[in-house]
Formats: sequence, C-alpha cells, structure tokens
Amino acid sequence: MRTIDRLVVCGVGLIGGSFALALREAGVVGEIVGVGRSSASLEAALSRGVIDRASMDWADALPGADLVLLATPVGQMDRVMAAMAPHLAAGTVVTDAGSTKRDVIEAAYRHLDAHLACVVPSHPIAGAETSGVGAAFPTLYQGRKVVVTPLPENDPSAVARVREVWGACGAILREMSPQEHDRVFAAVSHLPHLLAFGLVHDLAQRANAEQLFDYAASGFRDFTRIAGSHPEMWRDICIANRQALLGELDAYLAELALLRAYLMTGDGISLEGIFDDARRARTAWANQKTES
Amino acid sequence: MRTIDRLVVCGVGLIGGSFALALREAGVVGEIVGVGRSSASLEAALSRGVIDRASMDWADALPGADLVLLATPVGQMDRVMAAMAPHLAAGTVVTDAGSTKRDVIEAAYRHLDAHLACVVPSHPIAGAETSGVGAAFPTLYQGRKVVVTPLPENDPSAVARVREVWGACGAILREMSPQEHDRVFAAVSHLPHLLAFGLVHDLAQRANAEQLFDYAASGFRDFTRIAGSHPEMWRDICIANRQALLGELDAYLAELALLRAYLMTGDGISLEGIFDDARRARTAWANQKTES
Repeated sequence: MRTIDRLVVCGVGLIGGSFALALREAGVVGEIVGVGRSSASLEAALSRGVIDRASMDWADALPGADLVLLATPVGQMDRVMAAMAPHLAAGTVVTDAGSTKRDVIEAAYRHLDAHLACVVPSHPIAGAETSGVGAAFPTLYQGRKVVVTPLPENDPSAVARVREVWGACGAILREMSPQEHDRVFAAVSHLPHLLAFGLVHDLAQRANAEQLFDYAASGFRDFTRIAGSHPEMWRDICIANRQALLGELDAYLAELALLRAYLMTGDGISLEGIFDDARRARTAWANQKTES
Repeated sequence: MRTIDRLVVCGVGLIGGSFALALREAGVVGEIVGVGRSSASLEAALSRGVIDRASMDWADALPGADLVLLATPVGQMDRVMAAMAPHLAAGTVVTDAGSTKRDVIEAAYRHLDAHLACVVPSHPIAGAETSGVGAAFPTLYQGRKVVVTPLPENDPSAVARVREVWGACGAILREMSPQEHDRVFAAVSHLPHLLAFGLVHDLAQRANAEQLFDYAASGFRDFTRIAGSHPEMWRDICIANRQALLGELDAYLAELALLRAYLMTGDGISLEGIFDDARRARTAWANQKTES
C-alpha cells in the first residue's frame, strides 16, 4: 500500500496507540503525531515510542497529514471536530474508532461539512477492559472486524484508503449503514455492558456486599468482566446510542418479565425451554467462533 | 483421616465424578459405588475408572456404605431421598452437592426424618459449563469453597466427617444457615445465570440473529459463558430457590429502571457514577481474588 507520510492520532490510548503501533510494525507509516487533551498521556505515548511527536494544537499537528484517526471517547468527537476543522486540508483522510456511528457522523456534518468527501467513519471491534497507552499493543486488530460506515458524500478513493489502512493492521473489513451498525452493537455490546455495570452496582450497594462478593465465583467473574470497562467511554456510548439502547433494554425487560412470570408460577418446563434454546444458540456461536 | 470403606455417589457427573476422583487420589476411599438413572452414564463412569461398581438399585448399593454423596440436579433430590430411605442404615453419613439448600433440606425432613443426625447438607462452589462424567477431574475442588449448612438435628461427628471429606478434596470449608446460603447464591450465582440465559434467548429469537451473533465479540462471549450451562440443572435451581431469586430479580429490575431513566433523560453524570462505582467494586474484588 501507499505509505502514510504523516499520521495524526487524536486520543493515544488503547485504541489509538494500538493503531499507531500496528501501522508502524507494518512499515507503512512515516511520522506519527499524537494529539490529546492530557500532556501526561501524550508523554507516556512518546516515551513508549508509540508516537514520534506530541501536540496539543491542531494548527501545528494537521499540516501535511495524510490520515487522521480520531480515537477519543465518542462524547468528545463534536468538540474535537470543531477544533480541527479550521486546520484540515483538502485531501487529508479522516476516520475514527468510535463505538457508535450516528452521533459521530452528526458531528462530522456539523463541523466537517466542507470535508465530507474524505471523512470515512469506522469502528474496530476490538478492545479490552484495560485502557490507556500502556495497554496498547500492535496486534490488537489482528483478525478482528472493523466496520466501515461510508457516507454518501465519500470519495471512493478515501473509503478505499481507510479500508486499506485497517487491513494493514490485520483487520477484517465489513461495511454497514450507520443505523444498522448502531442497532447491532446496541444489542451485542452496549446492552451487555449496561447489564454488567448494573448488576455489580446493585450488589456493591448492599449492606452484605462483602459477603456476596466473597462467595462470587468464576461464573460471576466472567459475567461481570465488562463491568471493569472505562466508565467515561461507556457513558458516552450509552448516551450517544441511547435510542437504540433503550429499544434493546426494553426488549430485554420483556424477556425478564417472561422469566419472572415462569418463576412466579413455578413453570419449570418453560424455563428449561428458554435455557435450552439459549444454550444451543450460545454453543453453536462459540463453536463457530473457535473455528473461524 | 479415617478411611471411607464404601462411598456411594448418586449422580456421577462433573460434580459427583470429581468428588470420587478427588477422594481416590487422596487415598482415603475403598470401594466407590455409582448410582444413577442412566446406565449409559454409569458405564462411562465405570470405564473411566471413576467408580468401581454401578448400581441402579439402592437396596444393593447402600449396605455397608460409610458415606453417600447426592450429586443429582436438585429437582431429583426428593425422589432420590424417598427411594434410598428404606435402605439407609443408621450411621451412614449422607451429604449432597446441591446448589440450593432449603429445598434439599425440606426433602430430607420429608423422607430421611429417621436419619437426620447423619444428613449434613453441603454445596461445593465449583463447576463449569461442561457437564457429565467425561468432564470430571480430581482437582475440581482444590482451593474452592464448600458451604456446609448443618441441621439442628445433626450429630456433631457427622458434621465433622463431612467437613473432613470435603477437606480431603482440597476444599475450603465454610458454614452458613440454609436461608442465608440461598439468599447469597440467588444474588451472585442464580441471578447471573438467569440473566445470561435470558439475553442469549432474546437475541437468538430475532430475525437478524445470525447477523447479531456475527458481530458479538469477547465482551459478549464472557458475559454469556454461563448461558452454556446445563438447562435441567439450572431449571431445578431456579425453581427450588425461586423465592430468593425473585427477590434478587426484582432488585435488579429496580436497578435497570434507574439506568433506563438516566438513558431517557440523557443523564450522563448519573450513568457514569454507576459505571464508576461498579468498576471500582469489580476491580477491588478481582484483585482480591487474584491475591487469595
């Protein structure tokens, strides 16, 4: 692929840092400039060699950039796009790693309307409950899906460029509409995070919380692993995608109402039917994942 | 410890089979007799060397037994106890591995009222989403908690014997009242299982289920791992402990109502507060578990 002479990564944490490390390891990038709101995290990125240069000023960071990755929590995208807009040259391709797409795209329409040909939203399906540049590693995207949600205004060469760059990170490329993306991830990612945070919060408030956690075992550990995720990032995702998330939460509440009715009436046959369907679906999915 | 000349295990699956293997490896057991409802699973246990002799008849299995472990799904305990009662000798110690205790104890009062001095209920906090004797292994209980819930009628030497036997499996002994046991495990085990089964069932029914599962990633995998658990076993647990489980489900529904209200009003500050409390509690718990 064509080399990226200058890459700008805004938000050099787990996601942005791993993107920089992956492209550097692929040997396709010249200079990497890190932009951020905290000089401490930029210095950590510099000292780990994830970026070559740190900047807190878009006027200084953007000139000569081929590609910009926005990897901040989605709640900051509006502010970030407003700040970068005056300094963005025609031809600089902009993508992002936001877990929600409709809100990021709305911000792009608000602030980058003169650049929409080159703004190609994307979402890497990769992450961990760790965060920060210290957790970044070059193979994070290896074999992981990246969903690109192109805009009607996009220049096809800009879309191809974004696909090519994620491909260089080892990712598997997919395309979806932003609406479809946000509905799918509300169901399989945003809702489970909300549920896990909720369960731990519910138990942690109890007078006997210490006793409860003392008897929690491996099932509880796995069920609640995602409740160790970054609170600010997940606040932003939940707020940004709250329309789709509310729809998923309500569908789940209907499922719980059904389970509750079966418990109330002691209907073991119906309960076992649901458990059996769930186990079958879960096992089929897990086996397929292992094969792929 | 004193040797067990004859051990009877009723239900030679993951739990019963691992108990047999652990005691055999500890060198504290003479003959092991397996009792079950399926001759196929008893034959599998025989051919793996987990048991020395198989029986489908209590009159044949019980004479001379020092210790009986009941390791069937809790929904079968009533039937099992009724069947064994006429053949149970005074002095044979009976324990069980049921995940719920009040229902098992009620069955003991119904059928083993002449033997209550020697019936000492217990619950090993160990398991996996695998099941069957093929999944059994001798170190399953190593370092795991076993909760003993003695009855007021128990002979102290029978309680000591049950503690000693689980200790020989490498377990850490705890005691609780049956009521307290069932409340604690409704919160940290039974509810998470119900929630995970419910989420997978909810998604598996959708017209776009295939697409949803296609995009589900590692967070979803861990959150739903327990939805791969044994449907009959979990049906029995949910029905047996439905009073406490309904209390926990309702507390969780109140938590979800709160989260829903924050989503509706776009209250990011309150959402982040909950996420932050949950992460803090979850991280503290996970770190403590690693140390212990």
